[in-house]
Amino acid sequence: MVLENFLGRTADGSTTRLGRRSWLKRTAIAAGTAVASGSLVARGEEGGRLGVPESMRKLGNPILTPEYGLPSPHEGEVVRRPTDLTPTQYSSWSFTPLQDLEGIVTPNGLVFERHHGGVPDIAPEDHRLVLHGLVKRPLLFTMDDLVRFPAVSRFHFLECSGNGSAEWKEPRGKTVQFTHGLLSCCEWTGVPLATVLAEAGLASGAKWLLAEGGDAAAMTRSIPLEKALDDALLVYAQNGERLRPEQGYPLRLILPGYEGNMNVKWLRRIKVGDRPFYSREETSKYTDLLEDGRAREFSFVMEAKSVITRPSGGGGLRKGFNEIRGLAWSGRGRIARVDVSVDGGKRWQRASLDQPVLSKCLTRFRLPWTWQGGPAVLQSRAVDDTGYVQPGRSQLVAVRGLNSYYHNNSIQSWQVAVGGEVTNVHA
Amino acid sequence: MVLENFLGRTADGSTTRLGRRSWLKRTAIAAGTAVASGSLVARGEEGGRLGVPESMRKLGNPILTPEYGLPSPHEGEVVRRPTDLTPTQYSSWSFTPLQDLEGIVTPNGLVFERHHGGVPDIAPEDHRLVLHGLVKRPLLFTMDDLVRFPAVSRFHFLECSGNGSAEWKEPRGKTVQFTHGLLSCCEWTGVPLATVLAEAGLASGAKWLLAEGGDAAAMTRSIPLEKALDDALLVYAQNGERLRPEQGYPLRLILPGYEGNMNVKWLRRIKVGDRPFYSREETSKYTDLLEDGRAREFSFVMEAKSVITRPSGGGGLRKGFNEIRGLAWSGRGRIARVDVSVDGGKRWQRASLDQPVLSKCLTRFRLPWTWQGGPAVLQSRAVDDTGYVQPGRSQLVAVRGLNSYYHNNSIQSWQVAVGGEVTNVHA
Repeated sequence: MVLENFLGRTADGSTTRLGRRSWLKRTAIAAGTAVASGSLVARGEEGGRLGVPESMRKLGNPILTPEYGLPSPHEGEVVRRPTDLTPTQYSSWSFTPLQDLEGIVTPNGLVFERHHGGVPDIAPEDHRLVLHGLVKRPLLFTMDDLVRFPAVSRFHFLECSGNGSAEWKEPRGKTVQFTHGLLSCCEWTGVPLATVLAEAGLASGAKWLLAEGGDAAAMTRSIPLEKALDDALLVYAQNGERLRPEQGYPLRLILPGYEGNMNVKWLRRIKVGDRPFYSREETSKYTDLLEDGRAREFSFVMEAKSVITRPSGGGGLRKGFNEIRGLAWSGRGRIARVDVSVDGGKRWQRASLDQPVLSKCLTRFRLPWTWQGGPAVLQSRAVDDTGYVQPGRSQLVAVRGLNSYYHNNSIQSWQVAVGGEVTNVHA
Repeated sequence: MVLENFLGRTADGSTTRLGRRSWLKRTAIAAGTAVASGSLVARGEEGGRLGVPESMRKLGNPILTPEYGLPSPHEGEVVRRPTDLTPTQYSSWSFTPLQDLEGIVTPNGLVFERHHGGVPDIAPEDHRLVLHGLVKRPLLFTMDDLVRFPAVSRFHFLECSGNGSAEWKEPRGKTVQFTHGLLSCCEWTGVPLATVLAEAGLASGAKWLLAEGGDAAAMTRSIPLEKALDDALLVYAQNGERLRPEQGYPLRLILPGYEGNMNVKWLRRIKVGDRPFYSREETSKYTDLLEDGRAREFSFVMEAKSVITRPSGGGGLRKGFNEIRGLAWSGRGRIARVDVSVDGGKRWQRASLDQPVLSKCLTRFRLPWTWQGGPAVLQSRAVDDTGYVQPGRSQLVAVRGLNSYYHNNSIQSWQVAVGGEVTNVHA
């Protein structure tokens, strides 16, 4: 198993080119994308002989007794990071490291957090969900009760409506973790809320639901009955396993495409009523103040949005071939198209989308790009299957003004300097 | 936020029924499935008043400084468990707890393991992949080189060909973790091997590849060029984040639908040749000994298979409604259909399949079932889109005999006793 010792490394990557035939035909770009890839290995070359690495010379680590596995110690920088904008870590948030992630699934250990009274420790056998109000039969459920119901598993993104809130007036986040990291995507498993509501039976006049969390903040939101009967889920598992504590263990609401805080965690109560309940979190908070001093009453849906994650702020770019990668999503349905610009929006190219493209789910987009070393401004623009087009920042500000905080879905710009440094700019 | 104190729990779940209208229309079963679900909550009932739980009376845990999240302490039994059949834990395996999982994604911390010389610790900056042999330009790649290539993310199952090997002669595993837990499913991200091969250029006569791992066992397998050019991937991420150490960090091969050990981990070398390389792991091991003493030379593809994960061995069943849940998969393509029997194969009912149904990926199936309390034998049977039907155990033994070890894809039987105990049987 010793590698032939005539193999050696000779040069940097600039001497080889990625064959176009094999992959350019699968992209939307049909010309001119030369790629620096591996290094040529020449026979008999001196230097850099590829011997047998240390990892082959000794036994590795054994399988441990029953265990839950962890990431490599070499990936210690790939972690959630908290905001520094809150005076307490009990009502605060932490960001997903999007710059380090691939594909569409967010590993559970990296799903962003937003708590209003800390993360409660709830023993699942003690947890109860009450369903009452305008129902024919008020019901009480244990977790065992709920798990016995017919379930469904679906992939959906989850985004805090405050994602990008610090970016309204000036570009502040140095990395995509801080500009867009209140965004994650999981495979959620649970019971359709419609099934449980049918079990209780809706009484006359039922139009709105109140959902209450079992945390110290009693996080409470009003939910239109139409959404509850459409695709809302009572969720107990994420990415295969039971919910993480900070994601609402043992039970949470998932309202696909709706702003994160409505997906109430540690869910303990649903009350059916005939009108909105106007809780603190939908009156004093989670409304959008407009330029004229009025506020948008409800803004449930997260509109279409996208962001380039590679390259992105804080990264260093190498000359030559780079695949531009990013994420697109819409709270209204599927992503229909993503356009990418490398010149600040003058020209747009259509990105390819990884399959499957799912409704109210992250979609990974890609565009091959050769960076020649000059300045560039990278942008992406999502279009969903309703025809909605992600707005530029100036378009959004024209409509919403500068008092807004939530629901910033404007186009993100990453500026590439001549040296390869990538920074967050408004362009 | 105090819950109204007239709410109380009155009875066990047997008094309510799940409304048929809301979900039966979405299932293949159209009659007779009554469901015990929540408990009726009556006004003014004594006992069991639902007060404000402890979790709402005090602050929860704060957001920690940069961190990687972990499961709830209440889920401490949901872990990989090692086999007790190997004399060493350096060449051994551990099983995924399928009985505890939902959906199709396996969280990275629970993906099954199979090592032949332990888990090496490889720093990504030191890792190299060499591509040589019958190529026009031998190439050497750093991890940075590979990550710059155009990538793709796809969901695929991974199954050890030894999954179910202990079950040939008698039913041995007490839980589905031990009968079927050498099975996981992730979203894999990497470079199509075809792209990298095109970069090197195939020389005349190229027909097979050798893939070598950088572990102490130098795990080595031969791969048909046709597969390499079809859908093989050089993978560096699973479920969004970089590979876990035990999954080949920083680089592994993924050959969708092929037996697990061919998906070489810690991949350091690919050599292109004109014939199979006949390594130890495809001659003395990973072949199937037939009844007449001959062995099947290569058995790459994992044929269609399925298993019921809930209820399954070791579980206790409650009378009334239970959703039968399981997983189906095929190394040849998509699952077309899953049939479920509750009477040991006399009658079969068609299960519903969670969407999307992806190629060479786990598919979650479901069937509503009301257990009346009598004895039952639960079975599932997968059919893939090539028309292949998962065989019963006697069918498989008729063809393969009892000397076989690998590639046991026969139908699993779970016997339900009158008391609700579920056990592994051959039926």
